[in-house]
Amino acid sequence: MKIRNFKSIVSKYKVVFFDAFGVLKNAHGRIDGVDRTIDYLNAQGIGYYVLTNDASRSPELLADSYHRVGLHDITPDKIISSGMLASEYLRYKVKKGKVAYLGTPNSAHYIETLSLTAIPIGELDPATAEDVEVVVFLDDEGFDWNRDINKVINLLRHRNIPAIVANSDKAYPVSKNEVAAAIGAIANMVEDVTGKRIIRFGKPDAQMFIYAYEHVQPMHPVDKNDILMVGDTLGTDILGGNKFGLDTVMVLSGNTPAHLAKQYIQATGITPTYICESAAITE
Amino acid sequence: MKIRNFKSIVSKYKVVFFDAFGVLKNAHGRIDGVDRTIDYLNAQGIGYYVLTNDASRSPELLADSYHRVGLHDITPDKIISSGMLASEYLRYKVKKGKVAYLGTPNSAHYIETLSLTAIPIGELDPATAEDVEVVVFLDDEGFDWNRDINKVINLLRHRNIPAIVANSDKAYPVSKNEVAAAIGAIANMVEDVTGKRIIRFGKPDAQMFIYAYEHVQPMHPVDKNDILMVGDTLGTDILGGNKFGLDTVMVLSGNTPAHLAKQYIQATGITPTYICESAAITE
Amino acid sequence: MKIRNFKSIVSKYKVVFFDAFGVLKNAHGRIDGVDRTIDYLNAQGIGYYVLTNDASRSPELLADSYHRVGLHDITPDKIISSGMLASEYLRYKVKKGKVAYLGTPNSAHYIETLSLTAIPIGELDPATAEDVEVVVFLDDEGFDWNRDINKVINLLRHRNIPAIVANSDKAYPVSKNEVAAAIGAIANMVEDVTGKRIIRFGKPDAQMFIYAYEHVQPMHPVDKNDILMVGDTLGTDILGGNKFGLDTVMVLSGNTPAHLAKQYIQATGITPTYICESAAITE
Amino acid sequence: MKIRNFKSIVSKYKVVFFDAFGVLKNAHGRIDGVDRTIDYLNAQGIGYYVLTNDASRSPELLADSYHRVGLHDITPDKIISSGMLASEYLRYKVKKGKVAYLGTPNSAHYIETLSLTAIPIGELDPATAEDVEVVVFLDDEGFDWNRDINKVINLLRHRNIPAIVANSDKAYPVSKNEVAAAIGAIANMVEDVTGKRIIRFGKPDAQMFIYAYEHVQPMHPVDKNDILMVGDTLGTDILGGNKFGLDTVMVLSGNTPAHLAKQYIQATGITPTYICESAAITE
Repeated sequence: MKIRNFKSIVSKYKVVFFDAFGVLKNAHGRIDGVDRTIDYLNAQGIGYYVLTNDASRSPELLADSYHRVGLHDITPDKIISSGMLASEYLRYKVKKGKVAYLGTPNSAHYIETLSLTAIPIGELDPATAEDVEVVVFLDDEGFDWNRDINKVINLLRHRNIPAIVANSDKAYPVSKNEVAAAIGAIANMVEDVTGKRIIRFGKPDAQMFIYAYEHVQPMHPVDKNDILMVGDTLGTDILGGNKFGLDTVMVLSGNTPAHLAKQYIQATGITPTYICESAAITE
Repeated sequence: MKIRNFKSIVSKYKVVFFDAFGVLKNAHGRIDGVDRTIDYLNAQGIGYYVLTNDASRSPELLADSYHRVGLHDITPDKIISSGMLASEYLRYKVKKGKVAYLGTPNSAHYIETLSLTAIPIGELDPATAEDVEVVVFLDDEGFDWNRDINKVINLLRHRNIPAIVANSDKAYPVSKNEVAAAIGAIANMVEDVTGKRIIRFGKPDAQMFIYAYEHVQPMHPVDKNDILMVGDTLGTDILGGNKFGLDTVMVLSGNTPAHLAKQYIQATGITPTYICESAAITE
Repeated sequence: MKIRNFKSIVSKYKVVFFDAFGVLKNAHGRIDGVDRTIDYLNAQGIGYYVLTNDASRSPELLADSYHRVGLHDITPDKIISSGMLASEYLRYKVKKGKVAYLGTPNSAHYIETLSLTAIPIGELDPATAEDVEVVVFLDDEGFDWNRDINKVINLLRHRNIPAIVANSDKAYPVSKNEVAAAIGAIANMVEDVTGKRIIRFGKPDAQMFIYAYEHVQPMHPVDKNDILMVGDTLGTDILGGNKFGLDTVMVLSGNTPAHLAKQYIQATGITPTYICESAAITE
Repeated sequence: MKIRNFKSIVSKYKVVFFDAFGVLKNAHGRIDGVDRTIDYLNAQGIGYYVLTNDASRSPELLADSYHRVGLHDITPDKIISSGMLASEYLRYKVKKGKVAYLGTPNSAHYIETLSLTAIPIGELDPATAEDVEVVVFLDDEGFDWNRDINKVINLLRHRNIPAIVANSDKAYPVSKNEVAAAIGAIANMVEDVTGKRIIRFGKPDAQMFIYAYEHVQPMHPVDKNDILMVGDTLGTDILGGNKFGLDTVMVLSGNTPAHLAKQYIQATGITPTYICESAAITE
């Protein structure tokens, strides 16, 4: 397993897609040296974007979280979240009516930018649920799990309406050693209990990469060959990037520690084009 | 799909295993006519037992719930719950130490009958979690789902200890039209997030049927050919009974309504020996 | 469940995507009346394309199969097969070397259009397998299942190379009452045995719909709102179309017979925009 | 991860259950030193039995395979194969008629010991398939995979009869570096294509351990506490033994090499009571 120098790789591409957590920041803040990477990309005219399965907040609020760790050049227009795909789905498929959601008021941003009424599941009165057109799983916070997961289960049993999840991740880190179940795991549980097929948005699904690909064309008219996907997770960043036809870098600064990387690759067969310690440029 | 008369079938066996919910009682109380069935079995000297995936309460408290709907002959010794299997596992595999559990204080009965200390996950201090020897999923009530499911996830990530679930069901009815996610669905979610293999007790697993089979021998020394399993659910009662070598009756008074029975059987290939409207004897 | 008139629906769109089997033809030949549908679309200037998970033959040979049943206007440029996506993957991710495949010589078309060497798994000598860069599952015919599935399993265990399947379907009809396992089911089996993640192309995956969407733009510069997906299978045509943001028609002339349609929709929660007897225009 | 001396462990039990492949023998023959283990157990009066998911041959022929590698004391009565469970299922659930099977003529032993007619799927004439009462998956050899797997798929689609698999393993070793897909993987594929639930016999299922437990009582009237399960595979031998309440030894002479054992245990949470280099007694 050859560990490569990130700078020597990234310099060959015109656009870089970064995963967020484990690549640019972690529970402690900014990952060492990625501020110099951003400076380098700016200097070289290499485009960069953040592809994140985080639908808990708007791109504006997500960008704020980068500014707070000193990455001031990551502006909202550089952020592509799976919530934006959920929003696009709603725009095409739900013309009117109410959208019931699991998540915080912040996550409801992805519904409210459309001319749709967002209602937290917890506030839904079954008597008036008749005009709910879709259920959206946005975030694992902002609701009472016991009460509201059971409300969703019964809503989907009684009404034949679609359900979508704006983040297919199963868990996310909350501190150095602790994780929390993500909304993707809650959606899996509802699917397990009801048998209903929930539509998933987010890496590794191709739709995420196409959305990003089309998003960058006006600023950077590039081919897939010119884009590098950088991530820390084999099953989302690397699998999705590979399948879409991009070159991929797996970094060892997040979910996949150095001493397990080789074994994970062999066990799953998901193989990044390159492996680097991190996305930092260190000199 | 031939619908048979329950009395003409049950009269040919020496022992009957009944599923509980959907067969003997439902959200409204006792299922019509099963009191006469119990009278008939008593009169004929046919043994009968309740096999239930309900680990929320002791056999004594479960028996009380039958007495309240007028089935006074269903005494604790006639009840075989999946909690008893969990208890047996603990007796053989956990000689000492603390057992962390998800569930109500009533469900902790299955731990406390042993010389083990039962601690609700919610009260577990990570600093003293070092002497927890096993995690037991007992009931979906009695804890804060968000806080305590995440505590279990992290406990299983950090400690290499077994986890068992005393009820592999995914949902149970709470009223005529509503269900709730059962502890089996919560265990599936924890397995999905952690990758850890959780040991499942309860129908359709063979161990449940063997436990019952051995339990009845002192009173009724019978062969498998002499036992009839009566249930309303193809994937638990009928599949498990068939696999263990028992004849099976599917009743249409619970999970499997008459208009869907044929289709469910064809879709799954799980075929009961007989189909009856209910377990009632009606004349 | 309201059954709609196909003509009144299709007339509102600018482009139609048809699934192939069960929609335009079946084991007996052309589905009654779809020739008139094609005439109507031609007359109205509505674009139409066939989206098929059939990677067993080139678009040219697939078009021939339509000509033989009298649908002469379905030319190769109107056919979008999942094999074309597999080919695109190879073009981006495999620059040189050998491609080992399961399938007929006809299916190898999707490899040979690139500057890559296609080798049937059966002819692969393990001693020279070192320069195989990827395994492609193309078709269920053309090889000895026992010998060659085991060869693939061992190749993927020994070499850390990607594997892709150009058709994620599990089965396909071979006569009125018989089906055969498709290459997608064989890929699932290899994944089950090896634990290696196989990359899947074809409906319902979004990449198939995007490929088609981009393919039609030069001839028909349309928005998603202007495209109608017509299919007979909820889990591929309808789920994939819905997720991509298209309106969808489920026809009852194929996999989903009229007497089961409502139940399938309720069981899965996958809901087409419209339901029609078939894609025929009948007056 | 503490490696223990096998002799010091085994000496504390009254009965030992051995897995076969990877524990007593491998592709090269007998595993070094297990002949001395058998001598030791004989001398100490410790009972020993082989629990194997191999349903390809009768216990007599399986015993022969041990004799050929010099383990002459492993007589047919010491062998408990998953085929015997399949046979028991047929005895209770299929009173008459034809049994269609996938496997070699040798594997049909488990059907022919009953008063049932065994017919290879390949010889089955669909016109006379009406009196087939059950399908049994016995062995991966002895039939044309392509033709006969498709025949089974269509038979199960058309007839509502049960299907059982007498070996739930997915793969087995055929040489030092090669494996072959086992009949369990073929059964999984048929389940994947048809949606029909196939009944599985063999470790880790509890029924295998109960069968063995009851089998040994006449010779060795022991409690579960007195039995040691020795295996090389976490997901079958160790999981099944643990769940049934037995102490377990994982040996490093087979499927689970020493350098991966700790990681496999941590990833799955399946934890043996002890770990030993092998089941050999070496002085």
